[in-house]
Parts: sequence; C-alpha cells; structure tokens
Amino acid sequence: MENHVIKAALLGAGTVGSGVYALAGMLADEICKKTGGSLEIKRVMVRDLKKKRDGIPPEILTDNWEEILNDDEIWLVIEVMGGVEPAKTYITQAVLSGKQVVSANKDLLAEHGQELLSLAEERGVDLQFEAAVAGAIPIIRPLKQSLSASLLTEIMGIVNGTTNYILTKMSEAGMSYEEALEEATKLGYAEADPTADVEGYDAARKIAIMASLAYNSTVVFSDVYTEGITKITAEDVRYAEEFGYAIKLVGIAALEGGQIGVRVHPMLIPEQHPLATVRDSFNAVFVHGEANDDAMFMGRGAGKMPTASAVMGDVIIVMRNILHDNCGWNGGVAYKHIPVKPMEETKSRFFLRLKVADRPGVLANIAGVLGNNDVSIAQVVQKPSRGGVAELVVITGAVLERHFNDALMIVKGMSAVREVSGIIRVYG
Amino acid sequence: MENHVIKAALLGAGTVGSGVYALAGMLADEICKKTGGSLEIKRVMVRDLKKKRDGIPPEILTDNWEEILNDDEIWLVIEVMGGVEPAKTYITQAVLSGKQVVSANKDLLAEHGQELLSLAEERGVDLQFEAAVAGAIPIIRPLKQSLSASLLTEIMGIVNGTTNYILTKMSEAGMSYEEALEEATKLGYAEADPTADVEGYDAARKIAIMASLAYNSTVVFSDVYTEGITKITAEDVRYAEEFGYAIKLVGIAALEGGQIGVRVHPMLIPEQHPLATVRDSFNAVFVHGEANDDAMFMGRGAGKMPTASAVMGDVIIVMRNILHDNCGWNGGVAYKHIPVKPMEETKSRFFLRLKVADRPGVLANIAGVLGNNDVSIAQVVQKPSRGGVAELVVITGAVLERHFNDALMIVKGMSAVREVSGIIRVYG
Repeated sequence: MENHVIKAALLGAGTVGSGVYALAGMLADEICKKTGGSLEIKRVMVRDLKKKRDGIPPEILTDNWEEILNDDEIWLVIEVMGGVEPAKTYITQAVLSGKQVVSANKDLLAEHGQELLSLAEERGVDLQFEAAVAGAIPIIRPLKQSLSASLLTEIMGIVNGTTNYILTKMSEAGMSYEEALEEATKLGYAEADPTADVEGYDAARKIAIMASLAYNSTVVFSDVYTEGITKITAEDVRYAEEFGYAIKLVGIAALEGGQIGVRVHPMLIPEQHPLATVRDSFNAVFVHGEANDDAMFMGRGAGKMPTASAVMGDVIIVMRNILHDNCGWNGGVAYKHIPVKPMEETKSRFFLRLKVADRPGVLANIAGVLGNNDVSIAQVVQKPSRGGVAELVVITGAVLERHFNDALMIVKGMSAVREVSGIIRVYG
Repeated sequence: MENHVIKAALLGAGTVGSGVYALAGMLADEICKKTGGSLEIKRVMVRDLKKKRDGIPPEILTDNWEEILNDDEIWLVIEVMGGVEPAKTYITQAVLSGKQVVSANKDLLAEHGQELLSLAEERGVDLQFEAAVAGAIPIIRPLKQSLSASLLTEIMGIVNGTTNYILTKMSEAGMSYEEALEEATKLGYAEADPTADVEGYDAARKIAIMASLAYNSTVVFSDVYTEGITKITAEDVRYAEEFGYAIKLVGIAALEGGQIGVRVHPMLIPEQHPLATVRDSFNAVFVHGEANDDAMFMGRGAGKMPTASAVMGDVIIVMRNILHDNCGWNGGVAYKHIPVKPMEETKSRFFLRLKVADRPGVLANIAGVLGNNDVSIAQVVQKPSRGGVAELVVITGAVLERHFNDALMIVKGMSAVREVSGIIRVYG
C-alpha cells in the first residue's frame, strides 16, 4: 500500500458529485487522521467531457468506464450518477473486480439492492449506501447496526423533500397544489418533470430499501403501494387542520400479522406526532420497535453538501476498512422471507369529503351504507349548506381497504351524493 | 471457535442488566442470522448473590470478578453496572486480557473515555458504548461514522429524561418544580437522590462524551459548565411561553472561534425549534454541521428495554467483529487538542425577571446600566403593578457572560430593584 494513498473513481459530476469532490478536498486532513490514509480521486467519469466542471481538473475527467474498471490502482468506486443502468453494470463489474463501492443510488438499490449486497458479501467487498435514503440522515447504518436489537415493527418516513415542501406551503401559505409546485420548481426543489417526487415513486424506493434492512427480508420498489399528492387540495389541508392534523406524504413499512405492509401515500398526522412538525424540505424517519420504543431521525434528505457528507462518511468508513483489511462485512443481506401484505388487506382510517343534498336522512343513509361495510364513523362535521348542497367531512375508524373501497363505490352511487373527494388515510 | 458460540459475562443485573439478559434470549435466533454465531451469557456479576434475579439462572451468578477475568472462554464483557469504580478497573483489566467490551457507563466514559479508547485501540480490542449516551438513540456510532464528514459545529441535546419530564409537567400541567419532581419520583423517572439529574451532572457527562467524538478532541465531565433546573419556577415557564419559548435543560457543545464551548443549563428554546417539541422523558440530540446542515435524533434516553436494545446492538456488532477477526477499530480516539472555552467568554442571550419600584425612569435607568455593560435589550414586557412594585420581563441580545454578570451585579444593587429572578439563557 504505497504511502497509504487510496485511489478512487467518482462516477458522476453533477450536483452531488461536485459536492463530493469539493468535500474530499476540504476533509483531506481529517481523512488522514481518521483512516491513516489519504484519498485521491484519480478519475471522474462524466457523460459530456466538454462540459466545464467547477473545481475538478479537466485532465482527470473521463467518459470511459473501462479505463476505470481496468485501472488496478483504483480500489474504490463512488457512484453518484443515479438511475438503474448503466450504474448496475458498473457497480457489478466493480464488485467482481474487487473494487469497494460507495453508492448514493436509490433507484438501483430499491430494485437490485439485495442482489448487489449478496454479490458484495460473496466477494468480500464493501457496498455502502448511506446517502441513498434520506440524504444526510444516518438511517441505513443504524438500521443495520445500532437498531438491529430493537425488534422493529414500524418505520414511517417523510423521505421526499419536494413533496414535504409543497405540503408545507399549502398549509402555511395557503397555496394551491399548483402554486406550491411552481414555487418548488423555481427554488430547484422540484425537477422539470416532478413525477417521481409528486407521485411518490421516489419515497417508495426509499421505503423499500429501509424495509429490507429493518425486517431482513427483500422488499423492492414494485412491492410498494404508491399514491402521490397531486389530488390534495388546499381545502383538504384546511379541513385536516380543523381536525388537528397535518397532511404529509409518508412511506410506511410495518410488520403486520407476519407480513410486511409497505406503502406510500398522503396521510393525516396528528399535530402532536413528531412527524407533523417536520417542515419544508426536511426529511424524517420515525421508527418503532418493541425494545427501543419510539425514535425519530430528522435532517436534510437532499442537496449538494448534505448528500455529499453522507457519501463521504461512507468513503471514510470504506477507507478504514481497506487499510485494516476489513472489507466485505456490509450486513443487510436478507435472511428471512416475509411476504408483502396486499394493500386491500391493510387496515386504514380514512378522511373524506362528501357533497350531499341537504335534506333530512342523508347522513343517516350514508352512515348506514358505511356501517354495512364495516366502516365506522369516528368523527363527522357538516359544513354550512350552499344552494341545497351540504358538505360532510368524515373521519372513519380503522377499516380494511377493500371494505372501504366497497363502501365508497356504493356511496358514490347514492342519488343524494353529488361528489366524494379528498380521500386521504389517517394515522392511527 | 467451538461451534461459533461467543461466551460473555454481564456485569450488573439491575434494570438494564436484566433487560439485556432478557433481550439476548429474545434475539437468539436473530443473533445467529446476523452474526453467524450464538451468544451465551456464561456469567452475570452482581453485588448481592442472595437477591433473586428474575429470569437469570442462579447458577450463573457470581460476585467474583476474578472468576470472569480469568475465564479464557469469556471473550466479551458487557458492563451495565455504572459508576466509575470498580467499572474502570474491570474494563481496563478486560481490555488488557484481550476481552472485548460493551459498556453503557456514562460516568466512566465521561471521565476516562479517551484513556480507555486509546488502550482498546492499542490492544486491538472493541470498546463500544452506544447505550452510554441517550439510550436507544443511535448517536455515538453516527458521530464516529456517518456524520464524520459533516464538518460538525454544534451539538445541542436534551439528554436527561428526568428533567425533561419535570419541565414538561411544569409547562403542560402548570405544576411547580417540587410537584413535578414528586411525580417524576413516583413514576420511577427520578431517583431517590435526584441530584445528578436535576443539577445537570448526568447531562454534562453525556455532552462531554459527544463533544469528544464530534470534535475529535478530549472533553471530560469537569470541562462542562453545569447549571441545573432547581431554580426554574412555574412563573418562568409561563412567561417564557408568553414570549413563544419552551424551557428545556440542554447540553451544548459548539465549536466557537477555535475553541469548544461546552455547557449544560436550562434554555428558552423557540417553539418552532425541533427540540422544543421533545416532550416527557424523551431525549433528543440536535446537530449542525457545515456540510450536513441541521439534523435531529429523538428517542428513549433511558428505561430497561430501550437501553438494553442499544447494548445488544453493540453486542451484535462486536460478535460479528469477533467472528470476522475484526476487533479494535473503534474510532473516536481524539487526534486534536482543541481548548475548552471559558464560560465567561461565551456569548449568550438572557431572559430575566425584575421586580422594581413602579415609578418613572426606572426602566430607563436599568436599560442604561445594561447598555453600559454591552447588554442590549431585545424584548421587554412590563407586568401590571401590584402594591407599587412592577415586574419587568426582559430578553437581552447576545452578550459575553462576564459582561452580563457585571451588569447584573450593578442592577441588583440599584435602589429601585427589589428582586432579580429567573435568569435563564435564551437560544439564538
């Protein structure tokens, strides 16, 4: 090990990649003290060689993966390019050739995490990915280590900053969904195509990764029931607040009767719940275990330097592992086969708003239909009638999703019911 | 390694010890899957052999440390007895004889942590202590690992559940300090002698440990300026709320101008700050770094099973290290020498209440004295006068502690000033 210099390749020089490069420079001295070695980023792989990269010397840029793969001096690959391919091919080849890997790639890990972890374990190679979920919040390693004796039964997270920003603006500034999305886009919180964020796909990837680690069983992106925030209106937010709730987009992975219930959807969270206080683009992960009770982790889920700090935390660990000949004990490989619970078998409470003809007996009829389908009404508020149409805001008791759906179909068909909207699940 | 059984000794069978023993049983299968070995607690050391220990077979009890120390089959010592001695002697001897150590002992680690970590590093032995600070909240390992690239500049924690319970009751149930302490004692949150909790010594130990790890420099218990909550009154709590603050006992360790400011005292925290929402006996640690921005970790700071879950998380890690021949890379040994900042050189904002003669010019005189000592007034409220005495509630701007103390001495000596009380620092 010549002079204890660890040579690395950085795949990707976008926002996170340039942050990693800068932070590696800022931390040079700390890295030596913490690991006994120094880090040299020998190659930075980019798609467009001609694009100027602030702070990165042009002579280390390359667009040729083979050049990195075949360079035996490069022991560590830091992948921050995102997307399933070609990242999957690169990481697989890196692991097969004995290079250690740090990745921030949730798309890849939510679909092929277990496969890659198994391969890394087989080859005695590090595969670390703290930055892939909730950015600068240390949650991946705690799930594998410190919380591994906690008998976890529930994870509930606000793991998408864009949607949390939008919902915060709808609540605090009274904006419509469209106005809040526009502001998020202006500020760079939302991408030009916000689909992955607002439809909950991004959150679904993160909850799949956390579920796998918490319950030691493989959960992938496509296992996650996903519902976004595009249908949430300013009225929903206001009415929820009247009942004492904040609306948040949450990812949930819970052990329920020997199955893993795993889903992403908007939810009414009681104002006293720690997750209800998580504002703006912050992320937070709430966990409950039989042994540890409740815990919550909050922080920046995205952004250049926060994400880079999580990547570099992993790099420091891997460098120490390399220098102490101690790579390959990643943990996190699933050793159980717990089935994923079908969404229709999940129990939820629901908030919904109904526009109904304002005449005697309507509420009783609706309550009857709901009751016949095992849907109890926990709270109901009738809003003042306008032009013969009254608005009912209802919160139900816990009910099987399929029973609720049955009831809803009948309610929607009732002659007195003009509109059913704002159907959102409720915590508890 | 016969059949991959790791034999351990448990020092202490009190609340936490019995929790560890029980949890080791509950987790037997998980431990095998996670580590490839099984755990046998071969000996449990207690002071009183005659006392019945629920769930622990009497034949494994011992009161003889030598029996454990000299047993070469015992590779792992789990110390949950607390207190500096004899724990220090036992842990030192265990490390010297090559046994791995897991400890939950904040008293010991806050005074001799660096010495013990250096010894463990020198001997290639694990010394893990996640449970020593904030119980079930994973904060020790994140400070050493995932947050190690975050360029941390501030740690602020509610790390004593007893005092947080008392302050919560004073706020939410309007209790006096004495009433809230009595209730905490009844519920088992406060010990018969609550001094270590209410005077802030317990919190000071935890902040010393965290400061050492966050800034890679030795900070010990006696470095910490400590002020408890015994002088906080129900009126202070009520007036603080009027200004939009909650009163919390916080431990702070901040990098300030090349020095570490480290202190424990009650503080007015703005209601919007995440720490203000941490209720009852919950603990929380808020960290800020130049790279990671703000993050907060919340959870159970004490209690049988939460603390046991943190201890067993460490045990699982150490077992994996033993079975992979990988002990001794604890991290956390200080490699810097950053001086501790004298308290009088620290800047704070202050809340204080003054009873003054209700006559013209008094407020102007007081403001003049404060101003002459560099103390600016940020907010002031005058309460209705009673019997010729008016109450002023003041929040100052940021001021050096020594300037504030100078000003206070003069104000107290003014003829118009009858009483100065409720002197509490203010966040920001």
